[in-house]
Amino acid sequence: MAEATAIVGLGLMGGSLALALKRSRPDGRLIGIDVNRAALDAAVAAGGLDAASSDLKAVAQARLIILAAPVRTILRQIPLLIPIACDGALLLDLGSTKRQIVAAMDALPERLSAVGGHPMCGKETSGFAAAEGGLFAGKPFVLTPSARSSSEALERAARLVVDIGAYPVLMDAERHDRIVAAASHLPFASALALFDVVSAEAERDGKVWELASSGFRDTTRLAASDASMMLDILLTNPDNVSGLARLCSERLAEFANLVEQGKEAELRAILQDVSRRRRTWTEASIVRSASGEESS
Amino acid sequence: MAEATAIVGLGLMGGSLALALKRSRPDGRLIGIDVNRAALDAAVAAGGLDAASSDLKAVAQARLIILAAPVRTILRQIPLLIPIACDGALLLDLGSTKRQIVAAMDALPERLSAVGGHPMCGKETSGFAAAEGGLFAGKPFVLTPSARSSSEALERAARLVVDIGAYPVLMDAERHDRIVAAASHLPFASALALFDVVSAEAERDGKVWELASSGFRDTTRLAASDASMMLDILLTNPDNVSGLARLCSERLAEFANLVEQGKEAELRAILQDVSRRRRTWTEASIVRSASGEESS
Repeated sequence: MAEATAIVGLGLMGGSLALALKRSRPDGRLIGIDVNRAALDAAVAAGGLDAASSDLKAVAQARLIILAAPVRTILRQIPLLIPIACDGALLLDLGSTKRQIVAAMDALPERLSAVGGHPMCGKETSGFAAAEGGLFAGKPFVLTPSARSSSEALERAARLVVDIGAYPVLMDAERHDRIVAAASHLPFASALALFDVVSAEAERDGKVWELASSGFRDTTRLAASDASMMLDILLTNPDNVSGLARLCSERLAEFANLVEQGKEAELRAILQDVSRRRRTWTEASIVRSASGEESS
Repeated sequence: MAEATAIVGLGLMGGSLALALKRSRPDGRLIGIDVNRAALDAAVAAGGLDAASSDLKAVAQARLIILAAPVRTILRQIPLLIPIACDGALLLDLGSTKRQIVAAMDALPERLSAVGGHPMCGKETSGFAAAEGGLFAGKPFVLTPSARSSSEALERAARLVVDIGAYPVLMDAERHDRIVAAASHLPFASALALFDVVSAEAERDGKVWELASSGFRDTTRLAASDASMMLDILLTNPDNVSGLARLCSERLAEFANLVEQGKEAELRAILQDVSRRRRTWTEASIVRSASGEESS
């Protein structure tokens, strides 16, 4: 019983983690906890769980507790664990922003360990139906230490990361939140604004949809991301996200001015520079993925 | 000799058209014209041409002349054809914007026919090396009539479109340029601004690249588009592009304000609305592609 792992939240991330752990640690006992009975049943049916509960108290049996809900649900759950979790239990979470979560971990009693975590492998789909055991393979998995992260706790967290096929990237929560604002939250904001403007045009002329091709599809794919999950991300990373969204807004306004005024030399310089750098990025990321550190 | 077709410009579009025509009209004589000798040699080697020339005068033999260069090159070529093209020749182009091209076609002598064209199947790669005969299969191919578009000319152009596996979509040049600004040029502008902001962040902290995943890759893919081609597009569609880029810039600035001020209810409403509509779009485009009218 003492070697059990509890996963709280069986959506895309928690569900994929359950499937990955069942494969890599077949002897470990896996307890799934979710208020959504259908997600629990699906996870049990997929062979991802040894036990299922809709009560957070079921974490009492676990040496390793993994919180896999949207960020603000995790923030509500962390203090609820204090009277439940057993001595020496390690708490890990999969939340997409880390500053507020690590601050909540800092406030846990010393008898508990806690490490912030963020696997970099989002999809724009959600729920257990989209879960897959191979989701983490070759992907970076950020670990952000808290005041409750002993070196032993970090080691246990890193071992879990390696067991599910990912590779650990250690950094503090501040840096994580700044980086993901650029790498992930701004691309979402950009896709959202773009889809909104283009669909307003398509309401005026339905042929817009007929002529929209793979370029439009790819640039707006992230706009389909789960709204609840994204809302929690934005509200727990507002300074970084708003700062970058404003920069991007300014770039677009400057671009609009250059186009309107027909500033050929300036536009050519920008287009050539960005095109060259984006191609270099593609080549670099191909190299990285060929060396086993898949970035995409 | 009289049934020859000339393709001027053997990059991605012209090269793909040569390969598609060789397959669908194996008996037709195909003349390739390009100032780039390497592109000509590659097209000949790929079996896409019966004759190759670096001199525009080689169109004199052709009943069908297809201009497949960037938009402003096409604009320079159209008047040069007047003393060269044979009576009754049909001019078609593959340029990405249509108002200025159709205006240039309007000024041709009555002994020539001319129809504007735009196959909706861009890739962010360019050059003959990226050409493929199947590029147009299942894709919309816009035809924009000019003052030199008799019904017979439109019919001949539509037949070519069908022969290469695409389907013709007839609309005037004004409407085309408004629609592609939304469906194609704005997504490019958005990808450009996004890549620029994120790569500036990555210069401060290289870990941005390591944590950037498929979401960033897809939202910025268009930023790698060929700079010369895009420059011509922007400079020949400035009113539509700058108007939409400004709208998109405003959306992003509003979004930044909502995030900064933590306006949860407003953000939730926007995120839920856009996410729902983007998912509906995906389903609709799956239906469309299943019915043979692939949109992506």
